[in-house]
Amino acid sequence: MKVGIVGATGFGGLELIRLLKQHPEVKEFILYSSSKKGEHIDSVYPHLNGLAEGTLQAIDHERMPEQVDFLFSSAPTGVSASLLPPLLEQGMRIIDLAGDYRLKKQEEYRQWYKKEPPEQKWVEKAVYGMPEYNRENIETSQLIANPGCYPTAALNGLLPLVTNSLIETKSIIIDAKSGISGAGAVPSSAAHFPVANDNLQIYKVNQHQHIPEIEQMLHHYSEANDPITFNTHLVPMTRGIMNTMYATVEEGITEREIKEAFFEYAEQHPFIRLSPQRTFPCTKQVLGSNYCDIGWSFDTRTNRLTTVAVIDNLMKGAAGQAVHNFNLMNGFPENTGLQASPLFP
Amino acid sequence: MKVGIVGATGFGGLELIRLLKQHPEVKEFILYSSSKKGEHIDSVYPHLNGLAEGTLQAIDHERMPEQVDFLFSSAPTGVSASLLPPLLEQGMRIIDLAGDYRLKKQEEYRQWYKKEPPEQKWVEKAVYGMPEYNRENIETSQLIANPGCYPTAALNGLLPLVTNSLIETKSIIIDAKSGISGAGAVPSSAAHFPVANDNLQIYKVNQHQHIPEIEQMLHHYSEANDPITFNTHLVPMTRGIMNTMYATVEEGITEREIKEAFFEYAEQHPFIRLSPQRTFPCTKQVLGSNYCDIGWSFDTRTNRLTTVAVIDNLMKGAAGQAVHNFNLMNGFPENTGLQASPLFP
Amino acid sequence: MKVGIVGATGFGGLELIRLLKQHPEVKEFILYSSSKKGEHIDSVYPHLNGLAEGTLQAIDHERMPEQVDFLFSSAPTGVSASLLPPLLEQGMRIIDLAGDYRLKKQEEYRQWYKKEPPEQKWVEKAVYGMPEYNRENIETSQLIANPGCYPTAALNGLLPLVTNSLIETKSIIIDAKSGISGAGAVPSSAAHFPVANDNLQIYKVNQHQHIPEIEQMLHHYSEANDPITFNTHLVPMTRGIMNTMYATVEEGITEREIKEAFFEYAEQHPFIRLSPQRTFPCTKQVLGSNYCDIGWSFDTRTNRLTTVAVIDNLMKGAAGQAVHNFNLMNGFPENTGLQASPLFP
Amino acid sequence: MKVGIVGATGFGGLELIRLLKQHPEVKEFILYSSSKKGEHIDSVYPHLNGLAEGTLQAIDHERMPEQVDFLFSSAPTGVSASLLPPLLEQGMRIIDLAGDYRLKKQEEYRQWYKKEPPEQKWVEKAVYGMPEYNRENIETSQLIANPGCYPTAALNGLLPLVTNSLIETKSIIIDAKSGISGAGAVPSSAAHFPVANDNLQIYKVNQHQHIPEIEQMLHHYSEANDPITFNTHLVPMTRGIMNTMYATVEEGITEREIKEAFFEYAEQHPFIRLSPQRTFPCTKQVLGSNYCDIGWSFDTRTNRLTTVAVIDNLMKGAAGQAVHNFNLMNGFPENTGLQASPLFP
Repeated sequence: MKVGIVGATGFGGLELIRLLKQHPEVKEFILYSSSKKGEHIDSVYPHLNGLAEGTLQAIDHERMPEQVDFLFSSAPTGVSASLLPPLLEQGMRIIDLAGDYRLKKQEEYRQWYKKEPPEQKWVEKAVYGMPEYNRENIETSQLIANPGCYPTAALNGLLPLVTNSLIETKSIIIDAKSGISGAGAVPSSAAHFPVANDNLQIYKVNQHQHIPEIEQMLHHYSEANDPITFNTHLVPMTRGIMNTMYATVEEGITEREIKEAFFEYAEQHPFIRLSPQRTFPCTKQVLGSNYCDIGWSFDTRTNRLTTVAVIDNLMKGAAGQAVHNFNLMNGFPENTGLQASPLFP
Repeated sequence: MKVGIVGATGFGGLELIRLLKQHPEVKEFILYSSSKKGEHIDSVYPHLNGLAEGTLQAIDHERMPEQVDFLFSSAPTGVSASLLPPLLEQGMRIIDLAGDYRLKKQEEYRQWYKKEPPEQKWVEKAVYGMPEYNRENIETSQLIANPGCYPTAALNGLLPLVTNSLIETKSIIIDAKSGISGAGAVPSSAAHFPVANDNLQIYKVNQHQHIPEIEQMLHHYSEANDPITFNTHLVPMTRGIMNTMYATVEEGITEREIKEAFFEYAEQHPFIRLSPQRTFPCTKQVLGSNYCDIGWSFDTRTNRLTTVAVIDNLMKGAAGQAVHNFNLMNGFPENTGLQASPLFP
Repeated sequence: MKVGIVGATGFGGLELIRLLKQHPEVKEFILYSSSKKGEHIDSVYPHLNGLAEGTLQAIDHERMPEQVDFLFSSAPTGVSASLLPPLLEQGMRIIDLAGDYRLKKQEEYRQWYKKEPPEQKWVEKAVYGMPEYNRENIETSQLIANPGCYPTAALNGLLPLVTNSLIETKSIIIDAKSGISGAGAVPSSAAHFPVANDNLQIYKVNQHQHIPEIEQMLHHYSEANDPITFNTHLVPMTRGIMNTMYATVEEGITEREIKEAFFEYAEQHPFIRLSPQRTFPCTKQVLGSNYCDIGWSFDTRTNRLTTVAVIDNLMKGAAGQAVHNFNLMNGFPENTGLQASPLFP
Repeated sequence: MKVGIVGATGFGGLELIRLLKQHPEVKEFILYSSSKKGEHIDSVYPHLNGLAEGTLQAIDHERMPEQVDFLFSSAPTGVSASLLPPLLEQGMRIIDLAGDYRLKKQEEYRQWYKKEPPEQKWVEKAVYGMPEYNRENIETSQLIANPGCYPTAALNGLLPLVTNSLIETKSIIIDAKSGISGAGAVPSSAAHFPVANDNLQIYKVNQHQHIPEIEQMLHHYSEANDPITFNTHLVPMTRGIMNTMYATVEEGITEREIKEAFFEYAEQHPFIRLSPQRTFPCTKQVLGSNYCDIGWSFDTRTNRLTTVAVIDNLMKGAAGQAVHNFNLMNGFPENTGLQASPLFP
């Protein structure tokens, strides 16, 4: 296959290049960039010296459907709303890594993103690309809204509990922590090394745009429509997300039922790994891989469950999950090109 | 005054040396160390080259009361239980930075520390050294149990709310994050640089020994005796604690009442600083100082309050608070020797 | 005294605020900033919450001589060339932390800085503010060109050898490494956390503008006019410079003579510390302090001397040395306000 | 093939597992560990959860030749001297990642390693496993002494110059910097996070055991037997080596000749990449890959060449190069299993 990557010079784009370079079904890829068109990718990113041929192409709605068989869009949120529909109308199959097509309700998008949503038609057609819960829809979809990094870790840790009615959804509190690559490739004050290094920052307190994305899925799988509490921190590391999640256990539920729910979940899904009981994952144990590792502890003093889920935000939280979806959409074995072990230390 | 420091080669001890070196009322200090006695401190820690005279002394119960007027004990938890009583019996005034004398109930100490508590007499006489809530007792005390690092950040963020009945104590969840100096000066796997760097680790999930310490104070100031949820993470930075704290706001309480409670608290206490509304502190903004900076957000969607408190774990969380107590016990202005601005960046 | 700081929102400016805040002879300071005038410093830098009063003032050549008795200029290099002369003409005494007035030869400034130098008159009057070698001139100077960070570490390690004719100046190679705060407060790609973290970068290879500054002093104290080799690296840490310096030992020179030269140097100068023989300083052992720590090793296999000098780039390499010069210019004891111990760990 | 790994729980061992797991010619591997035999590798290293079957085996000279077709030994230096000969006598083919078999002169081994060398017979038979210079010998060898991490970066940067007589060997100075994983998996004070973080340390000044290893190769390819100067630093990052290397250019040599020498070298060797002229590599651009990236600058002011070589110390500096040698010894295409792109950021 011939594959295109829009927004190739962002961190999501770079990770897609790394993965597709080793994907046995991808014979060629074309890189698109509006900001650096005409440049060669390895003059911007020397780690790709010798690894990516051709220059960065301008985005051209007419030529793209001829140039490539499949498109990954890693353009910033707010851009793909207008960028993708002309391509979709021509029948292109697209995985969008941005937030534009994730929220089904346009008013929620406006409220949380402070941007104008894409036209309703494509929002409706878009499938939320979480393979663990949406596999069949993904396989037949034309447009995938690839999940956000935080929601990926949150939902993989919470949905096995919610779908089995093990926790009270109204009690859910998610304390999320991310490495700074999550802030993207554009320099900023909060990500300036002398500020970010040896520092822990909290941001967008109670206002993060991933809140409605998590709630949308939780509400889909539970009867209640409770709001959740969700906060995010910038940890002085490059990659990695850890979500520490708290919820009150439903009356009468035992540790054994929790254990079984997680055990079964990990059994069914190739990229979910369960930590041995009473141990907890660290972010580094999934570095560079597509795994989501989960640990949990039922505290009988408070009747609360602590669930910990870790991912590599650029992999399972972005490009890795996108390639997973790409595999499903094309009928490839779902772990194709995603089998690399984590890099440790 | 002539002051002694037991456990001078630990990180708490080093920070005491740094502070007492600049304290105008301390004319001399003697360093004690059981593990390195006879060595010179600057051969162990070259940053002290030229700054600390004399060799490390052995701990000697008979000579110590003659050698010094006041003692800081920074020995590991479990050691001061037996180390201090003979000195106390001779009338020495002591600030203990370890956990031994903090919990009033011996069975709680046994349960959480898995160690034998000190004799009940001295546990009873010990005053919990949190200047914001115990000032008068501290001033007349012979033995101070200096608060733990996490409880310091937790209680300064929560007590202004609890004492004003603004939150439901049974809903309190504390998600705590610490720099790795909190693990002490002895090398370990979890603190081995290649493991800890670029990594986020969670530890002692629902089992941290600071849980009963926080609860003891919360229960003292509230009518209920609710257990709390408290978890701790190792952040890849040297110093700093951030506690992100969640609680349901009591029925009918307004944002304004919360604001006033914190405002008044910061007004009254020299080392408490309130972040401007809708902004939140980062750990680096208190580095090397004795400040506890607090920010908060009332989320009306969930009726929950998010409170963020940051400290330097070796300062306000250990040596700085100890010197604060030392000032109170000796009638010095409370900020004596603690006026240095944070080091930024 | 009433002191002004131009460029108060840069990292050099912040460090001056931290130091002057604790300087017993400074009763008040006024902060100037062209980019943020009218703002309050602690809304830009929350670590200063409650520590710095008044708003940032615009730079005003007419009012400044009335407002303050002494001026520190921490404006970027290239700005002070035109900014300072009108103030100097009015008799103001100024310490300039930028590079503009350091090089005595205007053509060298043009060549290495690619900027237009200040007028020759003030370049000639400017005294290079290295207290160890220029004390008398500093005391009577009106304008101090405060040394660059790298040259400070280089010259303190090399001049004791050069002035005693112990090494061949033509053989000098300086391999310099700096924390990233040296790059300043403005975000950039090379200092973007995801790029800079867990990374080592070399930059301005054989082209750093500190080369002529180091050579100017070496040539002043040696007979030869040999060029040196000097390269610089960005280390993933916030503060600290380590210069590893190589030179061939002059024929017939013994280890003992080297030892004595350094010993004598450290004896004479309060901020120079010599590491015990066969030990070497690390950058962290001077963090937050004004020390320059030096270690050395004479390798008889190659007849080369390895000299290692470390400083905190924002202290001895910038603001600390500036305050040292300020003390000398005003007849205060030279270590006034500079006695804080390093922060370790 | 069935492959064994001795010392599987060290960082070199872990990296071998990661690589061999994806190597198409390796059907199975057995992990040996003297310290953790009987344990399962993923209980020690959770990143391998689900990725490595079987328990860690004891080292057993009799069973190993039957169990595996090929052996990688990643035991600590000093251990393989006695561990390997009984296996070699039985005909096993082995790649040793330790230092024991690298130095051809036993007295040099004793002097620099302060250990007893292996018997002369096997030292003589051992082939220094640097594929760029020893390919033919490697292909037919039974025992490979896999090069040290620093020498790999040093020799790939210097040999193209030395073999073309472009630099004066007696002028070579290597200033080497490494991430802290180079210190191994055993916790120590220098690698304790609170000490190592935000710090730059120099160690083994003029005494590093890699000095004779580099000299041995340089002397093999040059007429002179000049000693070199070589120093090593611990940079606060997990992986990566940068060697900044200085040498005087031979009389009459032009920039063009240098350029051609490096260009030709990079053309011939699949894991050598040359940075575009006047640009220089950073360590992160080779993270997780087997590349050695090289940049250089000829400074006509000093007639010195600055050459910069970077590698991932656990890859090209250890396990990656070992797999490269393994490919050559077995007639596989030399980049088999080594084609992953660097992980960036």
